[in-house]
Amino acid sequence: MYEVTDKNFEELYPKIEETLKKAVFLAIDTEFSGLKTDFFVKESLFDSPDERYVKVKNNIQPFIIIQFGFTAFHHIREKNAYGAETFNFYLLPRSIPTKNRHFVWQITALEFLAVYKFDFNKFAYTGISYLDEADEIELRNELHEDILMRHLERFISNKDSDELRDSRNKVADWLRQKTEPYAAMEIETDSPFLQYLMHKELRYQFPDIWTYPGKRKVIVIKVAKDERHDLEVKEGDELDQTLLDYYIGFSKVFKLMVTLKKPIVGHNVLTDLMYMHQQFYKSLPKKYTEFKENIHRLFPLVYDTKLLSYELRKTLQKEEKFANNALNTLYYYFKDARGKHLTLNSPLICSVDNSTLEVDSFHDAGWDSYCAGYCFIKMAHTFAVKKRGTGSHYKPMTNIEIMNGVTPFVNHINIIRGNVSFLNLGGPDPISVRPEWLFVEALGKKTICASEIAELLSSFGNVDVKPFSSKRALVAVANHASARDILKHFKSNADIYIGPYNSFRHSPAAKLFMWGGVIISGGIIALMLQYKSRL
Amino acid sequence: MYEVTDKNFEELYPKIEETLKKAVFLAIDTEFSGLKTDFFVKESLFDSPDERYVKVKNNIQPFIIIQFGFTAFHHIREKNAYGAETFNFYLLPRSIPTKNRHFVWQITALEFLAVYKFDFNKFAYTGISYLDEADEIELRNELHEDILMRHLERFISNKDSDELRDSRNKVADWLRQKTEPYAAMEIETDSPFLQYLMHKELRYQFPDIWTYPGKRKVIVIKVAKDERHDLEVKEGDELDQTLLDYYIGFSKVFKLMVTLKKPIVGHNVLTDLMYMHQQFYKSLPKKYTEFKENIHRLFPLVYDTKLLSYELRKTLQKEEKFANNALNTLYYYFKDARGKHLTLNSPLICSVDNSTLEVDSFHDAGWDSYCAGYCFIKMAHTFAVKKRGTGSHYKPMTNIEIMNGVTPFVNHINIIRGNVSFLNLGGPDPISVRPEWLFVEALGKKTICASEIAELLSSFGNVDVKPFSSKRALVAVANHASARDILKHFKSNADIYIGPYNSFRHSPAAKLFMWGGVIISGGIIALMLQYKSRL
Repeated sequence: MYEVTDKNFEELYPKIEETLKKAVFLAIDTEFSGLKTDFFVKESLFDSPDERYVKVKNNIQPFIIIQFGFTAFHHIREKNAYGAETFNFYLLPRSIPTKNRHFVWQITALEFLAVYKFDFNKFAYTGISYLDEADEIELRNELHEDILMRHLERFISNKDSDELRDSRNKVADWLRQKTEPYAAMEIETDSPFLQYLMHKELRYQFPDIWTYPGKRKVIVIKVAKDERHDLEVKEGDELDQTLLDYYIGFSKVFKLMVTLKKPIVGHNVLTDLMYMHQQFYKSLPKKYTEFKENIHRLFPLVYDTKLLSYELRKTLQKEEKFANNALNTLYYYFKDARGKHLTLNSPLICSVDNSTLEVDSFHDAGWDSYCAGYCFIKMAHTFAVKKRGTGSHYKPMTNIEIMNGVTPFVNHINIIRGNVSFLNLGGPDPISVRPEWLFVEALGKKTICASEIAELLSSFGNVDVKPFSSKRALVAVANHASARDILKHFKSNADIYIGPYNSFRHSPAAKLFMWGGVIISGGIIALMLQYKSRL
Repeated sequence: MYEVTDKNFEELYPKIEETLKKAVFLAIDTEFSGLKTDFFVKESLFDSPDERYVKVKNNIQPFIIIQFGFTAFHHIREKNAYGAETFNFYLLPRSIPTKNRHFVWQITALEFLAVYKFDFNKFAYTGISYLDEADEIELRNELHEDILMRHLERFISNKDSDELRDSRNKVADWLRQKTEPYAAMEIETDSPFLQYLMHKELRYQFPDIWTYPGKRKVIVIKVAKDERHDLEVKEGDELDQTLLDYYIGFSKVFKLMVTLKKPIVGHNVLTDLMYMHQQFYKSLPKKYTEFKENIHRLFPLVYDTKLLSYELRKTLQKEEKFANNALNTLYYYFKDARGKHLTLNSPLICSVDNSTLEVDSFHDAGWDSYCAGYCFIKMAHTFAVKKRGTGSHYKPMTNIEIMNGVTPFVNHINIIRGNVSFLNLGGPDPISVRPEWLFVEALGKKTICASEIAELLSSFGNVDVKPFSSKRALVAVANHASARDILKHFKSNADIYIGPYNSFRHSPAAKLFMWGGVIISGGIIALMLQYKSRL
């Protein structure tokens, strides 16, 4: 695994490019600085994909991806194997003088990362910059119009200002010493912004020098004045471009991923996609459909291993099933447990640089991306074998055959606890197959408490409760068996009435309920609209 | 210097308490996660203390103190010396299950700290918790009403939930092995919240055990059922209190400082005081006067070394002056340079534990607090000598004599570039002695650009410009000589009229100006009000 920071990013970029180009698919994973602006917004069985999108969008807005991992897989047919190369990027929105960049840490996220040994110093000291499209355009214009240099006193820190002055004095002293033509001197500085300022300022101050970029330094050469003119013409806007590239940083990799359009694989990948859209492309659009269109245009082929694992589970015998579909469970299932037997003769997966992948470090974006890709291959192979018929696992498959195994699930993105189990990036979302909502009413003088109702019904299966008055609530139930059991159990209950929402809707009480709902809470309006859109 | 983290805080607390109690004053310093919500709000010569308070309040709201340093100084009369003990606390708002704690990093602040080698891992892994008054009351009530345990499923993470289940299983297995009475077992866990849950849960599940807290572990003892009852009665709410203490963390030190009311010393201390109010006491009040009252009640004696240095500078001969009054310049001035001769026979300042103070690490809160205290003693001594008369520096002074040297400046807090140079925590703020504002108008068809005017006038001294129409602006000038020079220089300028605002105010044009101002920008209304309040 390559740990990529701003110390080695430039150097590693050609390798990254080459790896991405030869890949047959990319598995990705991200770690964030937070997940929830509103702590108490929960995923609910009431949520349509549209509503879920808005919930997540509002929740993730102030947070950022602080670590982006991808593993590029290439197929090695003669060995019936996939080679895997993992890159793990630390990301930090580097300060742009004209912009007040900042981000929010949610403490639970920070503590979570600490449990998994995240290196906060590596992040803060050597994180790679990134820009979304709008910020890139803005900065490009500012550089083009020389706004930084024209209003330098507004943007420069005292420390940078001092270093800049020192560099000027150093060059002046050096020139006074009867410096020979083509003599050279060097000024060391780590900061790309300060390097930029030094090039600009020294060239401006001294007509008989030229400056070249060195590794973490500025090289000053004494030149004749007429040569100097040629050098200026020849260079054009290279300094601006170098600074811009520094700020673009990781977004260059993102753009390359977009250009190459290799299939993308992630585990429970909706949040990752939303973060990527927000951080490297544009702010998340208001409209859910616009988000879907954008992602589909950027990445036309996306697979979600969480969704695949649910689909696979349906086809397995009871004793073959995995305990749950957390990424680590799935990985060990396929690597060491029952899943190993299930995927006999499936391709070998070998990390090209095994050295740092020896320790299984879950919740490291690089490692998790490797695991997602690993599980993807195993599951795709299993589907492909099932498609080709029994006994077919003896014959090694081509990459295309394997990828064809998961074609039915392309762009189906898992939704945790929603009114549908996935959304479809490539077309209309599925119709909900959850049971009709239940309508709950407290009888007599009793009132309803949402959490009590939830607790009361939880023994029948997963439920979510939306109260809309002191006596009434709606209940969304995850599956039909649970809904049937609930209706049966509460049929003659003296304290509480539970019936299908549908029959209530056609009853004479419906009108009153609607009015009551609208008066009591704005939330019910959304409910009504949602209901109508399902008709 | 003691580096205090949540690994050694409890252990060090008695030492901290003892040190604070014997101190004659405390020098403090803080490092923040950011300073400016609005990047382009600048300090201005137009700002009254009231307006400055609002500016800073709005700017610092989402940020936190991440490092708090204090150096406690005690006087050693027989040695004509002060002993200094420094404590440097890393602070992190530890996650409370019922609360979505978070904070903002401003990238410039993060990069600034990185330049000075701040240890982000120490901060994220071992930062000490804190609570303000409101959060403490809320959490105390939640614990009292057992809200955490009653709604545990809403608050517990999957990881904690798994560990809790494992601990239950472990104890059940252990009890099945015919455990002898008073046999003991241990369950290790680092997290204070999980320890709390384990105590509660294990006691609830197993009536024949009792649990004791160990160092990063829970100790389980087998007891008889009747003993168990006595233990419960005896313990009371100790578990709740332990958890609450963990969350209160550093706020306990803050409260002790408030109780002891030792004089507080800081360099340019306004922002530190505002952060402390916000973080350990209450949200900053809307009203500036309320803030002043609160701070004055909490800390009745505050000294600002930046303000003292300005006052001292006034009394020095030209060749005696320091280059600027940044903390590091002042420190070296008194330690090694001209100031060393100026403070002959002033008390020796010795760090009690010199070991980690050998390297001068500015922008480390602990080190900076030491330097502020160091400069304070040197300046207070100089003032005291001047007060007592020439030649008096030969005789060592008592602490009281030294402190009396700065009595005229107590509670005077430096204001950077405002309409007054300080605010007074202990009474009414000073009247501005800045020159009357100037009124600028472009003549003929010309228009005015604020930054051009600022540049044009900057050669005369510090100025700030507030435009209020395309042709007019107000200018605040830092000192009278500059204002006179400006008026003289522009007396017969053909492009621009500059006159005293005062005479303009009484001219026939004033009415028009006021109307124009109100229509063009809301800002001018504030200006008018401000002006009126100064009449």
